[in-house]
Amino acid sequence: MEKTKLAEIITIGDELLIGQVIDTNSAFIAQSLGEHGIEVQSIVSVHDEREQILAALRQATENADLVLLTGGLGPTKDDITKRVLCEFFDTDLVDDNNVRRHIHDLYASRPAILNKLTETQWQVPRNCTVLENSVGSAPIMLWQNAGANNAVVVSMPGVPYEMEIAMRDKVLPYLESIGFSKGRQIIHRNVLVYGVPESTLALRIGQWEDALPPTMHLAYLPKDGIVRLRLSSYGEHTAAEVESEEKALLSLLGDSVIATEDKPIEVLVGEQLRRLNATIATAESCTGGKLAVLLSKHSGSSDFYKGSIIAYSNEVKKNVLNVSSDDLSRYGAVSEAVVAAMARGAQQVLGVDYAVATSGVAGPTGGTPDKPVGTVWIAVATPDEVVTELLHLGRLREKNTDRATLAVLVKLLRILQNK
Amino acid sequence: MEKTKLAEIITIGDELLIGQVIDTNSAFIAQSLGEHGIEVQSIVSVHDEREQILAALRQATENADLVLLTGGLGPTKDDITKRVLCEFFDTDLVDDNNVRRHIHDLYASRPAILNKLTETQWQVPRNCTVLENSVGSAPIMLWQNAGANNAVVVSMPGVPYEMEIAMRDKVLPYLESIGFSKGRQIIHRNVLVYGVPESTLALRIGQWEDALPPTMHLAYLPKDGIVRLRLSSYGEHTAAEVESEEKALLSLLGDSVIATEDKPIEVLVGEQLRRLNATIATAESCTGGKLAVLLSKHSGSSDFYKGSIIAYSNEVKKNVLNVSSDDLSRYGAVSEAVVAAMARGAQQVLGVDYAVATSGVAGPTGGTPDKPVGTVWIAVATPDEVVTELLHLGRLREKNTDRATLAVLVKLLRILQNK
Repeated sequence: MEKTKLAEIITIGDELLIGQVIDTNSAFIAQSLGEHGIEVQSIVSVHDEREQILAALRQATENADLVLLTGGLGPTKDDITKRVLCEFFDTDLVDDNNVRRHIHDLYASRPAILNKLTETQWQVPRNCTVLENSVGSAPIMLWQNAGANNAVVVSMPGVPYEMEIAMRDKVLPYLESIGFSKGRQIIHRNVLVYGVPESTLALRIGQWEDALPPTMHLAYLPKDGIVRLRLSSYGEHTAAEVESEEKALLSLLGDSVIATEDKPIEVLVGEQLRRLNATIATAESCTGGKLAVLLSKHSGSSDFYKGSIIAYSNEVKKNVLNVSSDDLSRYGAVSEAVVAAMARGAQQVLGVDYAVATSGVAGPTGGTPDKPVGTVWIAVATPDEVVTELLHLGRLREKNTDRATLAVLVKLLRILQNK
Repeated sequence: MEKTKLAEIITIGDELLIGQVIDTNSAFIAQSLGEHGIEVQSIVSVHDEREQILAALRQATENADLVLLTGGLGPTKDDITKRVLCEFFDTDLVDDNNVRRHIHDLYASRPAILNKLTETQWQVPRNCTVLENSVGSAPIMLWQNAGANNAVVVSMPGVPYEMEIAMRDKVLPYLESIGFSKGRQIIHRNVLVYGVPESTLALRIGQWEDALPPTMHLAYLPKDGIVRLRLSSYGEHTAAEVESEEKALLSLLGDSVIATEDKPIEVLVGEQLRRLNATIATAESCTGGKLAVLLSKHSGSSDFYKGSIIAYSNEVKKNVLNVSSDDLSRYGAVSEAVVAAMARGAQQVLGVDYAVATSGVAGPTGGTPDKPVGTVWIAVATPDEVVTELLHLGRLREKNTDRATLAVLVKLLRILQNK
């Protein structure tokens, strides 16, 4: 097996070092590289300053096979990455006609007009390979054979969505095309687990995990209440061997598994709804629209998602969702009776097959001894019945609404999977 | 004026380098230091590996006056920061009775029991100053006079909320007590600008910016469609002088300014609604609940936010928002007539003073020659009238819905500010 390639990430921008912007790019890059069997050794954030960028470049090209830079490619004068790269690679800037054309195309569909500053965006270092930034004006620039290690150096825009598209569509395919992650046959299998804390999970599958061959590796990737287990095999195993390990893992996990592919929960739900040719709506109080946002997130979701009533006030619960005043005053808005009525109300008013509802005390205020902060009722209305559940969440508002959103979607997914 | 103190941040943990965890600690630390006049030079993230941590420590203590480490202080065997610090500072571990007592107190109020691993937590390097971690078991450790620069080195836990409390309550006061950030008076002024691309902005205020005294600095901080301009003054200027520069800036910016304080748009809107004692609701098609999520995001928002109708399908627009079938078939869902009717519908159905509405082609599919992807109508219904606007956005679904959400909130904010 080939030696693991090592990468270093350099993120550039004063905004990172004054703490105004959190560096989310590095985690995205590290994750993408990991999936291609490339290991990130270190991450460095530096100012938009010539000396610092040069020093970071020198050090990284000595230690790593791959150096990825983000940031400092804007047209304003504080952005200097391109000029510093010219200095590092001993070259000058030349106009690039492809980039010029691309930028003109971009601006043709925008209200903004090209100005003097924007025109500098199609100047690129003479000796680099230019990859198109399909969603922005700063081109992606790539060099090979840099420094003692013959490293590949790639400079990408710092705007996260531009960088993410650049990585996925241009940089990773290019790296593959120059044999960067070649010779390694990597197989990944993903298992999504819900409702089991990471440490409990680790104890439950520890023995199986310890017995894995050294060229198979299990990663725990907890995110927003779901733990994604990624079983990776490097080079030496057949698909059947990996599958057999996955089967063993699945049997240890039982009902905690919600999917065996790495897709967002709302996509899994959408697939089930499409399969059943069914429609859905939401009635939300404490989640305040988070279910609606997820269900409408992906193109084509109007096939199954019809709409939502965000019933933040009791008046809306009564007047729009037809929740009875009696139930509201007898049990309160955060109750099984009300959440069930909300789900049924959305089902009827919005004319759908399935409806989900949430009502809870998100916090930090509004808790009572009876219903402390974190008390959340959720409901799923199906064509046959309404299923409810009481959640006892934590003290943090944002976390509580995220967890309630996830809980109700998992509940719905399990119901749909059994239809 | 005293020379600006320079800091370096070292964050330690494999989870950062596989992209499993986003490093939010560095931004928090950098911001806190900035408020105390200490400038962060660079941020480095390294694995839980002896060699890497030692190399980072060596380099940082050569360059900086202050080195802040987070992470690697847990009781499990992968956490090695404390042992590596012992090696770096040529010392050994000794039991600390204060820490032992503190950990016993902590566990007295927890369901968990002390185990062998936890007991290692009250061992500390013999030659460090120990500061109490009031919310966790890993003590904060501090050294002075490290390396060529006589740097201060502080090691803090990596758990964000433990680190944040440690910084605020222990580390910053301690640094002040040893004269670390004395004698500098820093003034920041923030101006939020909407609707002007960064490069246009730079051209418009370039002359003023160039004429700023060297101890005043302007930062451009674009985020989600708003550019935040931060004018910082270091030490030598009175508040009146800074204010006078801010006034000059404001007059150059004119109507593009939406606020002179750094607050999220939904908070600015909420403040205006509270001032007017007015209520609000939303009717959303393409934004799919994003307006609802923002308006319900902060505790206490039920004072003004009543609810939303997410009318993703035309049936919901008709049946719940009372949009006329005629308008829908004559102009289509993405039209001025329909978005205005949606806003009025929400105002009436949900019984509120103000309502905002969106309807557009978010993409990537659904565009027509007439209404290409990125065509979005927005509306604000006030007690007196309905104001509409047509937006021409881009090709990216997520960005389009974010930008439409921001556009309608800015439109509403400006209307409310003039009431």
